[in-house]
Amino acid sequence: MKNYIDAENAKRIDALNADYNALAEHLDRRGIDANAIKERAKTFAVAVPSWGTGTGGTRFARFPGEGEPRDIFDKLDDCGVIHGLTRATPNVSLHIPWDQADPKALLAKANEHGLGFDAMNSNTFQDQPNQAHSYKFGSLSHVDAATRQQAIDHNVACIEIGQAIGSSALTVWIGDGSNFPGQTHMGRQFDRYMASMQEIYGALPDDWQLFSEHKMYEPAFYSTVVQDWGTSLMIAQELGEKAKCLVDLGHHAPNVNIEMIVSRLIRAGKLGGFHFNDSKYGDDDLDSGTIDPYRMFLVWNELVDAESPDLNLSHMIDQSHNVTDPIESLMISAMEIQRAFVQASLVNRDALAGYQSDNDALMASATLRQAFRTDVDPILQMARFETGGAIAPIMTYRASGYRAKVSETRPKVSGAGGGIV
Amino acid sequence: MKNYIDAENAKRIDALNADYNALAEHLDRRGIDANAIKERAKTFAVAVPSWGTGTGGTRFARFPGEGEPRDIFDKLDDCGVIHGLTRATPNVSLHIPWDQADPKALLAKANEHGLGFDAMNSNTFQDQPNQAHSYKFGSLSHVDAATRQQAIDHNVACIEIGQAIGSSALTVWIGDGSNFPGQTHMGRQFDRYMASMQEIYGALPDDWQLFSEHKMYEPAFYSTVVQDWGTSLMIAQELGEKAKCLVDLGHHAPNVNIEMIVSRLIRAGKLGGFHFNDSKYGDDDLDSGTIDPYRMFLVWNELVDAESPDLNLSHMIDQSHNVTDPIESLMISAMEIQRAFVQASLVNRDALAGYQSDNDALMASATLRQAFRTDVDPILQMARFETGGAIAPIMTYRASGYRAKVSETRPKVSGAGGGIV
Amino acid sequence: MKNYIDAENAKRIDALNADYNALAEHLDRRGIDANAIKERAKTFAVAVPSWGTGTGGTRFARFPGEGEPRDIFDKLDDCGVIHGLTRATPNVSLHIPWDQADPKALLAKANEHGLGFDAMNSNTFQDQPNQAHSYKFGSLSHVDAATRQQAIDHNVACIEIGQAIGSSALTVWIGDGSNFPGQTHMGRQFDRYMASMQEIYGALPDDWQLFSEHKMYEPAFYSTVVQDWGTSLMIAQELGEKAKCLVDLGHHAPNVNIEMIVSRLIRAGKLGGFHFNDSKYGDDDLDSGTIDPYRMFLVWNELVDAESPDLNLSHMIDQSHNVTDPIESLMISAMEIQRAFVQASLVNRDALAGYQSDNDALMASATLRQAFRTDVDPILQMARFETGGAIAPIMTYRASGYRAKVSETRPKVSGAGGGIV
Amino acid sequence: MKNYIDAENAKRIDALNADYNALAEHLDRRGIDANAIKERAKTFAVAVPSWGTGTGGTRFARFPGEGEPRDIFDKLDDCGVIHGLTRATPNVSLHIPWDQADPKALLAKANEHGLGFDAMNSNTFQDQPNQAHSYKFGSLSHVDAATRQQAIDHNVACIEIGQAIGSSALTVWIGDGSNFPGQTHMGRQFDRYMASMQEIYGALPDDWQLFSEHKMYEPAFYSTVVQDWGTSLMIAQELGEKAKCLVDLGHHAPNVNIEMIVSRLIRAGKLGGFHFNDSKYGDDDLDSGTIDPYRMFLVWNELVDAESPDLNLSHMIDQSHNVTDPIESLMISAMEIQRAFVQASLVNRDALAGYQSDNDALMASATLRQAFRTDVDPILQMARFETGGAIAPIMTYRASGYRAKVSETRPKVSGAGGGIV
Repeated sequence: MKNYIDAENAKRIDALNADYNALAEHLDRRGIDANAIKERAKTFAVAVPSWGTGTGGTRFARFPGEGEPRDIFDKLDDCGVIHGLTRATPNVSLHIPWDQADPKALLAKANEHGLGFDAMNSNTFQDQPNQAHSYKFGSLSHVDAATRQQAIDHNVACIEIGQAIGSSALTVWIGDGSNFPGQTHMGRQFDRYMASMQEIYGALPDDWQLFSEHKMYEPAFYSTVVQDWGTSLMIAQELGEKAKCLVDLGHHAPNVNIEMIVSRLIRAGKLGGFHFNDSKYGDDDLDSGTIDPYRMFLVWNELVDAESPDLNLSHMIDQSHNVTDPIESLMISAMEIQRAFVQASLVNRDALAGYQSDNDALMASATLRQAFRTDVDPILQMARFETGGAIAPIMTYRASGYRAKVSETRPKVSGAGGGIV
Repeated sequence: MKNYIDAENAKRIDALNADYNALAEHLDRRGIDANAIKERAKTFAVAVPSWGTGTGGTRFARFPGEGEPRDIFDKLDDCGVIHGLTRATPNVSLHIPWDQADPKALLAKANEHGLGFDAMNSNTFQDQPNQAHSYKFGSLSHVDAATRQQAIDHNVACIEIGQAIGSSALTVWIGDGSNFPGQTHMGRQFDRYMASMQEIYGALPDDWQLFSEHKMYEPAFYSTVVQDWGTSLMIAQELGEKAKCLVDLGHHAPNVNIEMIVSRLIRAGKLGGFHFNDSKYGDDDLDSGTIDPYRMFLVWNELVDAESPDLNLSHMIDQSHNVTDPIESLMISAMEIQRAFVQASLVNRDALAGYQSDNDALMASATLRQAFRTDVDPILQMARFETGGAIAPIMTYRASGYRAKVSETRPKVSGAGGGIV
Repeated sequence: MKNYIDAENAKRIDALNADYNALAEHLDRRGIDANAIKERAKTFAVAVPSWGTGTGGTRFARFPGEGEPRDIFDKLDDCGVIHGLTRATPNVSLHIPWDQADPKALLAKANEHGLGFDAMNSNTFQDQPNQAHSYKFGSLSHVDAATRQQAIDHNVACIEIGQAIGSSALTVWIGDGSNFPGQTHMGRQFDRYMASMQEIYGALPDDWQLFSEHKMYEPAFYSTVVQDWGTSLMIAQELGEKAKCLVDLGHHAPNVNIEMIVSRLIRAGKLGGFHFNDSKYGDDDLDSGTIDPYRMFLVWNELVDAESPDLNLSHMIDQSHNVTDPIESLMISAMEIQRAFVQASLVNRDALAGYQSDNDALMASATLRQAFRTDVDPILQMARFETGGAIAPIMTYRASGYRAKVSETRPKVSGAGGGIV
Repeated sequence: MKNYIDAENAKRIDALNADYNALAEHLDRRGIDANAIKERAKTFAVAVPSWGTGTGGTRFARFPGEGEPRDIFDKLDDCGVIHGLTRATPNVSLHIPWDQADPKALLAKANEHGLGFDAMNSNTFQDQPNQAHSYKFGSLSHVDAATRQQAIDHNVACIEIGQAIGSSALTVWIGDGSNFPGQTHMGRQFDRYMASMQEIYGALPDDWQLFSEHKMYEPAFYSTVVQDWGTSLMIAQELGEKAKCLVDLGHHAPNVNIEMIVSRLIRAGKLGGFHFNDSKYGDDDLDSGTIDPYRMFLVWNELVDAESPDLNLSHMIDQSHNVTDPIESLMISAMEIQRAFVQASLVNRDALAGYQSDNDALMASATLRQAFRTDVDPILQMARFETGGAIAPIMTYRASGYRAKVSETRPKVSGAGGGIV
């Protein structure tokens, strides 16, 4: 890939220099040091979800692409490409049991690409072959103690795998809930959930974090156990210091002000991190920044504003790539999230605070928009260029023919039907 | 099943007689003839979707139950049970290619259970093995003419199968749309869709109807071609007299007033029928009447109000049964829809019209609620009893041990993962 | 009014006896004692909001009715009529400064009608004539300390008034928030709000409760300080034991499962009470039980399930009556809330628990629906009849000619325009 | 104002020249002629609503600002300032009866500021003093013929006023609907509405257009007569060629894809124009482009794509300015709408069409985003500068002290309460 990067960058470096210098001059007039922002851009990192490298689908259908990764090692190869080109995704988030493998082999493959491992993800929303107890009616909150224990054990196993590969966090998202009013006693169901989580929390190493991830609906369609940030907060409070709340941007009710939830969780000392994606209707899991980029900016505006050594967040992408090459979608997404981070870093916070004190709503709002509409592409491109990445990751990836090459060794996958069939 | 019906009915007939007589006396005081309503209840029919007899799932997981039907013949057996017990579901709606079979064999099996066939459903939202062109990027609206032709041909084939089995309508629901802004040119995409639909319409027999079904989204989408009733109306208007709009209760934006859409489509002469289900968040496909029964009543209030020989509607259930025995869910759903029909038949329309003329909002609204809260169970039960059905279909079905029996011959199905895996 | 009640009841008592006996027999077959339920119905009470007796409006327009109450004493007269007819609304909730008056005079007028006083409501969302500091940019969370102090003082004054008339709770709902991203620093704004609330909490008598009421938005907003139950929970937790969360049914995001919020707040020990109303789109403030009666039932299902001496809730109506006679709307609403309470009392909780243990989603759900669809009108009517109320409150009220009578002394109000003019 | 413009522009012209040249060079590398885009930007025009120059409110409160306009002549003065500074708002849209005045005086005042008149707006959602029939229960769709006639006459009067001042369109937005299920017969209500509209349409001059504006809810909270674009389309189709649909961006259900509605109405030949604003929850009427700027861009992407001599649209702002100086909000809004127009003009439509043909969703989507994120401020500023406007309208306006000056002659307005009081 190095050769392709060099070749493609060579075509673009002159234009980039011109654009960068013009932007630097413009920012200088606004009192902003472009180079400082560029250095800051280089510090950005968001983790890639291993499962995001395969083609996703809906309950109706899945249309696989060419050269789908066969296993976690293929996935890590793809993640290596993503990080190599964007320099923004140094870590991979694993999903167990999908990614179960020998930890040493995982570490070796990751090292090959200069990758590390982010939060572990357990899976108790699906049944696996030969599983003793079904999760059809729940896992950590199931009425049956043996089923709950099985789910607890699985989470503990995820922690152990994570320890072996250098992860330090576990994300727990469950599909537990109900499809009909009355199906479950919502209070007792939550009690069972909490008891199970206490067990998992008890198995957590001292330097680990446990992330509780809320979601309004799906796969359960009348209620979910962890339906919103209020319940997630209750969970994190009851469990203890190492428990935090993880915010998936697509898991809220319509119209909800997500940046305000971020602000509240920061105040409560319970924000743990994000699953980034974008959405228009429900949990659409679309590429980050492609539907409502200003919303993404406003989330980052809160994060940049609240930056402190105490605020140690896990940033992950969580998307479903149904009609695009997953590698391309993950690269675009990482860059759009990085863009929002950089834009939010341009906000003139002294001016903003002044407008806020003066109740000058119009200028306060305009101050945010000015930062948002600054085209920071030259800063992102230069940050990549200077760290060995591609000025234009998508074009470079396409030029490399990577997908066609791996398609030769990765067998064609047939289009499995969705869940409804 | 006849024996079980008789045995279970015998346990309940005394209580039913008491309840029925009490209700009849009460209704008499309100100037309503219970027997007339009961006879009206017997005229009710809603079609069962063949695919509803199997366990559904989400993009995350599917948890099959015992004794899942293996093919359309098993499904028709299950539909026979549903109709035998409820006497409310005399027709089955087929889905091609899932239900593809020799028409004569289909007719023979249907006759065996006293069943007929309702609207045909085509499928161009999934790829089938050995299909020449993929529907990954659309079907009837695809940019590629050959792919569109393949989808057109499939719909025409569905009409032909339908003709052979006595159906007289085709429902077209497509998954075409886009996942990202810009992915498609929304105007040209619609032009292509219309051209394809014109071809299908051209192949429609004179006494058939063509139903256009709108849907706002499925998680993953940015746009769908037939996103709402406005577009569906445009389609039906352009195609011609035989084209009508089909309303799936779960396919709307949050908070939308569905009964008003029903009213508008009736006025436009373009209401064709329904896919009944219930939902709390999105297209949840839950059992009809289990989440917002008053909404179902308000839809039926419009239908009963507008009854006329010219208003010839196709009523179908369209649900996904993920955590219940599909036969039970379909029986409950048919009875809940029938309940709303009967409740709406109790509305004192003269009084209502008077209150409306007087702008007496409070009493007009109370008039609807009085009808809605009348417990019409005895009427529904007696209507079933008198037509050979079960007073208590669920209990009778459970007493019969039907599911256990068919499980002996129908092999266990493993839990296929959803589309996301 | 007593004469009208007697006369109207006399016309209906025979039919009621027949209906009641039939229902009692039916319930007896279900193992339920109708008389016990009737006695339980008599224990029901919901407070009437004083402001609800006047005609409400929108930002576009207000269309006053005949005989609008001129002041709190007229309002208390109207509340006396409501309680006299329904026997379900023994308390009135005051709003300061709208209802400011001599406490002794308030008590005297209330005693006249056998009424007491429920939670006090402060108002810092409007400017009053001669007010020193404007609430245009906030009240308890305003950037200006003097403005905050003014709002704090007002709340403390509300407590003092409440103490003089026998109230024991203060509900704090503020209009603070922002209209544009950036207008306020959401974290600091919340800090200021909390500091103000701490002051108010400090002034709270030992036997009082402080209710925090969340609300997602009012058209025009980008953010509100207390936007959802999660923030409300944080507030109640920080303030202390006497602080609880008040749930207004219309203050949530679309599709939100409110009964689950109720369940969570009960578990957290922080549910304080309700503002009942119904809604289809936003904070529509429509008559309770007129849009989605099953949702109201599901809320009450949680409350009845959780009944205990420790769960001491304040139930209030909070509605805007724009097109109906407010007295009629308040009577209908009180009766619909009572209906849900009684229906929820019919749930067979042992059977339900069994179905839940068995993951029998279908029968669990059917168990709730059976209770919901039981027409408990005869129980409600008999409970009113036996406690001196009207079998048919609306018809009795109309027969009394009350509105026409008070119109003679209450001057006609001109239709003031809404806020937008 | 001219002096202030010159003085403020002088401070900024050097920086603007630098920014403009840098942008021109950058665009040149993308094959775009900045000067051509700048000339195009000068062609942009959006009408200002006269009522937008006053401070708006909610049903709860209105907090007037300093120097509120007393009448339409003050409002036209304010509109003159807005256009003078932005050069983007040459027309004003009047609202009758709020702006009723001698047509000659209106024309004279408008000429003074170089302003013209856009679409007329009728008002049958409020009662006016001494009005014979109340609109409490509807206007054009009222059950009473005399009330309907009064509303028809008012609309015809609006046309006549409009003819006298050079307008050529009438926008009809009504508050008719219902607050409760059953309150109106939705079908007959629509019939009455159509009959009234036919009368108005009959009075329409040949060269006029009649705009039907839909809105989901408020001031009616269960149903509105023109609830969505589907109904609006039915209206425009039935009325005839001069009838078109007007889209207010804030009048839709949550999550609705507005740009797709735009695409559909264009295809149906029935798009008439827009009421621009922005919103987060409901009909928030916030400043255009301040909440979801990408949505605004996507709407303009459709409009620019569909540009043709046949597509003659009316662009208007419709907002409520509750916490800002209305003049500032209207300037910001006009500039944000113009920004979206210019950004949409940068879309490489040949490349986009190619990506669409290739089903290259990722690059198609990226093509739109590239245009959106181009900071076109220098183009907008230079377009204003070259046409006599202000490079920085807000700062120039503030420097001019206009508001303080008019406050001397315009009396202070007290804070009228909202509709709910």
